[in-house]
Amino acid sequence: MILEWPSPSQKEAINRARVAHLATADAAADPHVIPVCFVYDGLSVYSVVDQKPKRVEAMELRRVRNILMNPQVALVVDQYNEDWTALGYTLIKGRAEILSNGAEILVAIRLLREKYTQYQTMDIDDSPVIKIHPSRIIGWGRPGQ
Amino acid sequence: MILEWPSPSQKEAINRARVAHLATADAAADPHVIPVCFVYDGLSVYSVVDQKPKRVEAMELRRVRNILMNPQVALVVDQYNEDWTALGYTLIKGRAEILSNGAEILVAIRLLREKYTQYQTMDIDDSPVIKIHPSRIIGWGRPGQ
Repeated sequence: MILEWPSPSQKEAINRARVAHLATADAAADPHVIPVCFVYDGLSVYSVVDQKPKRVEAMELRRVRNILMNPQVALVVDQYNEDWTALGYTLIKGRAEILSNGAEILVAIRLLREKYTQYQTMDIDDSPVIKIHPSRIIGWGRPGQ
Repeated sequence: MILEWPSPSQKEAINRARVAHLATADAAADPHVIPVCFVYDGLSVYSVVDQKPKRVEAMELRRVRNILMNPQVALVVDQYNEDWTALGYTLIKGRAEILSNGAEILVAIRLLREKYTQYQTMDIDDSPVIKIHPSRIIGWGRPGQ
């Protein structure tokens, strides 16, 4: 099944996922990928560059540096299952930005704290927030698992 | 914890993971990421472009096309945990190739079938095999979880 845009139930399924994998690339087309927590409000994807647990600064900022030089990103949502007939994923292609608008950062942080109780006691208010504007959302297999 | 190269126990931990996420990028630095099954023999990572379940040809081959035009890849191994103090990942940076050597393909398929019983009844003998030559392996947090 290929979905060119998610249905409401598919949007909910994307947002139910607790983790996604974010791929970025630098200007030399060298790709990078890390697991991220995220929230999807049906229009945009938000992810905060948090401090869980303390990480090396260069690693922490790699995705940010890549996005600043090359906003093209891909985010995949999936869950592994030993029953391979149940496998699927949702691939979100789009452009990312590091938010600088204070009001939108507040909304993103609030949404992330609603989804992840772990964020409620973490000091993330001044952390960089990545916003992804999806240009294409593709479902493969059984992406709503 | 940053590991510049994995220890034997870390190699085992990488190979115990049932799924990894492979990032590639095309020549225009547009990144792509998908979940993959893989095997790591301590030197190289192998993944087969299998048919589970049947997928659209263009999607199926995107990673292959990217690797052919740009061999730089990143592969991340991690498992999500609601206890964020237990989170970690292993990031493998390297160069990939589509194997054309028949003997090495046979070895890779054998290793994949040893790791994944699902492959034992699947016709993957003529499927493209991606080989990743790691240039750098970085552990963050608690990557062996």
